Amino acid sequence: MSSQKSFAKGSTAPGPVAQGSVRLYSMRFCPFAQRTRLVLTAKGIKHDIVNINLKDKPDWFLEKNPLGLVPTLETPSGQVIYESLITCEYLDEVYANNKLLPADPYEKAQQKMMLEHFSKVTPYFYKIPMGRRNGDDVSALEGELKEKLSKSNQHLEKTKSNFFAGNSITMIDYMMWPWFERLELLELKHCMDGSPALQKWTECMLEDPTVKDTKHSLDTYKAFYKTYMEGKPNYDYGL
Amino acid sequence: MSSQKSFAKGSTAPGPVAQGSVRLYSMRFCPFAQRTRLVLTAKGIKHDIVNINLKDKPDWFLEKNPLGLVPTLETPSGQVIYESLITCEYLDEVYANNKLLPADPYEKAQQKMMLEHFSKVTPYFYKIPMGRRNGDDVSALEGELKEKLSKSNQHLEKTKSNFFAGNSITMIDYMMWPWFERLELLELKHCMDGSPALQKWTECMLEDPTVKDTKHSLDTYKAFYKTYMEGKPNYDYGL
Repeated sequence: MSSQKSFAKGSTAPGPVAQGSVRLYSMRFCPFAQRTRLVLTAKGIKHDIVNINLKDKPDWFLEKNPLGLVPTLETPSGQVIYESLITCEYLDEVYANNKLLPADPYEKAQQKMMLEHFSKVTPYFYKIPMGRRNGDDVSALEGELKEKLSKSNQHLEKTKSNFFAGNSITMIDYMMWPWFERLELLELKHCMDGSPALQKWTECMLEDPTVKDTKHSLDTYKAFYKTYMEGKPNYDYGL
Repeated sequence: MSSQKSFAKGSTAPGPVAQGSVRLYSMRFCPFAQRTRLVLTAKGIKHDIVNINLKDKPDWFLEKNPLGLVPTLETPSGQVIYESLITCEYLDEVYANNKLLPADPYEKAQQKMMLEHFSKVTPYFYKIPMGRRNGDDVSALEGELKEKLSKSNQHLEKTKSNFFAGNSITMIDYMMWPWFERLELLELKHCMDGSPALQKWTECMLEDPTVKDTKHSLDTYKAFYKTYMEGKPNYDYGL
């Protein structure tokens, strides 16, 4: 994991991307960027990470990606790739080691359909905490999240497997993981109460060396999250 | 194009998918399903089409795809694939003839990034007509659509090519096309006024045999659209 402090407006741009390497523009606590960090680590891809201050983005970063999004990848030849799922599939296609997506087109389509469902789950990880902060009654939202998580639980039970596409970790597991890592931080763990297979999955995931390598401790998350909720995110917390 | 009337609740399910063929569950006027029809036609894939009455879906269809979405593909072995982009990429991977996506991972990522941008354009094709129907002032929305289309125009001008990934049609062109086919119907043609390269692209697209094969006439669209706006869509109009 990069321990380099984040680059803000006015900073000097980092040097060119080294030959044989790839660069990830990231933010240490961003779940979408974590997807790409998981894939880089799982596949053992040589890379460097440039952390970006998302509240005060450097002009040189906006020149590379006018949308200013993380994760963004840059290759030595200056190719720029963004959107978390696109960066991950790109890396899996370019680097042969430890293929994370199945070669079979139907199995690959299945992973993409699961991800499409999951894209309707992630918004709850923002809506519920924000609702609580505003003093809203979030019990209906919590019920909806519970219901959606129970669908994932059913999938694991039906397929009788530890992971979402069999008994070893593949792309789909890594793409879903970052939000589950934040369940405790966001006080949403009870939404998995009726989902024992999904709970077992999170335990299996926590044993994975790649997950261990890219995760933060609950204390670190809490400290960052506090600054984030106060509107002054400390992207460099703990460095 | 299938000329079979749509299947509604209570209908008898069609027989099994023939070996060596693939089935598309579709709705004749749906732009998302048209994406898949374009790919099936462009690649010369043997297929049959089962049109679905989306207002009154058959139970046997909901058993195949509980989300009840079109497009949905079904293979002879009963594999079910849905979400328009996923169906199109699946077909391009399974069928070698006339590959529509580039083999190069970066070029493929570029097409996906363009599609990600375009997914923020399609909502205007619903919001503006609905706003007009409600008597709202839609000039701001029209301005936003104009601005977004001018970005696509800039891409074509910068790359000096007739199509979005060079001088021949590829996946990205077919994925964007269905909404442009409906510009005149939706009275949105003026939103391309400042975008001559994009206008030229639509003219090139209209010359493509696959586009010709999957399109409807303006009169047919108008007649269907009238029933749609009245809340009683006639999915079988013109059959």
